[in-house]
Amino acid sequence: MELLKQRIRQDGTVKGTDVLKVDSFLNHQMDVDLFAEIGREFLRRFDGCGVNKILTIEASGIGIACVTAQFFHCPVIFAKKSQTKNIDGEVYTTQVESFTHGRVYDVIVSKRFLGPEDKVLIIDDFLANGAALEGLIDLVNQAGAQLAGAGIVIEKAFQPGGARLRAQGVRVESLARIQSMSQETGIVFTDD
Amino acid sequence: MELLKQRIRQDGTVKGTDVLKVDSFLNHQMDVDLFAEIGREFLRRFDGCGVNKILTIEASGIGIACVTAQFFHCPVIFAKKSQTKNIDGEVYTTQVESFTHGRVYDVIVSKRFLGPEDKVLIIDDFLANGAALEGLIDLVNQAGAQLAGAGIVIEKAFQPGGARLRAQGVRVESLARIQSMSQETGIVFTDD
Repeated sequence: MELLKQRIRQDGTVKGTDVLKVDSFLNHQMDVDLFAEIGREFLRRFDGCGVNKILTIEASGIGIACVTAQFFHCPVIFAKKSQTKNIDGEVYTTQVESFTHGRVYDVIVSKRFLGPEDKVLIIDDFLANGAALEGLIDLVNQAGAQLAGAGIVIEKAFQPGGARLRAQGVRVESLARIQSMSQETGIVFTDD
Repeated sequence: MELLKQRIRQDGTVKGTDVLKVDSFLNHQMDVDLFAEIGREFLRRFDGCGVNKILTIEASGIGIACVTAQFFHCPVIFAKKSQTKNIDGEVYTTQVESFTHGRVYDVIVSKRFLGPEDKVLIIDDFLANGAALEGLIDLVNQAGAQLAGAGIVIEKAFQPGGARLRAQGVRVESLARIQSMSQETGIVFTDD
């Protein structure tokens, strides 16, 4: 998605070789006009797939997922990072390792909102190691729902998550795939 | 906002005398068509106020804030619950007590995204004790920005936050104000 890549080149900041800060438009301050273009592009890629639920994880995926859902005319569910154990069996639970924060979260979705009748599109802002996406796929599988695929805004293609999940047969559509980046050479996208 | 009150009556669940579960359409599963009507109503109430930034707090305010921002044609900033101390002076920090989780969070916004040139509309899903809203107002004040007001989806008018903030001169617009609720009597809105 050229508009997105231009914006990343213009406003993204590279720190070291694996941190890309896009907090001026994507995940702290959020440009909702850009989100609308992102949502339109996800619809173009997943139109006709029968998507009836969008699933994301708190916090920074929620805005993109909600704007995207307006194009699919379906509800969004956001998986919650839980501080409490599942004591009543009312939620699906999985564990997600955060490399950024160096800890493992329990991530939950209420069983009332995901079931075998659902065809789910997962939306998230970043794909790198794939831990969050794998956790969300696990929740979809626990629910017996079908997975249409995953729509990712920025994929760090030099990290292993995307390749591993595609090898497992998951349809992963990333709107900007970064091949490499550094403060010296800038950002190189996979199809540049 | 009648559509919202109907939805709360239909799909909201009261637990005890102060817990209202609206997670089927507002803050776990999210009905983005309803969010669009909510955003349109916030625009009706704050149109012409010169709002150029919407501020919310993670996580459940983000979806409502993003859909609302499409009507105001402005960016959204979400304040982050931080696990790290402000060591570099790049963020405004305030503390918010969560009565739900029984702890105090540091809440931060980058100084790059909020300043004296901004006129800020705060958006959140709930107003009860007012701790989150007061924290967000503190961040606006630290930035030297102007506050247009706060747009709240559901106010528990039987808790003290709304009255205290209005007494301080804050314009608080709540789309559904609950006077009282219980499993026996159901939900009574202030203007029923």
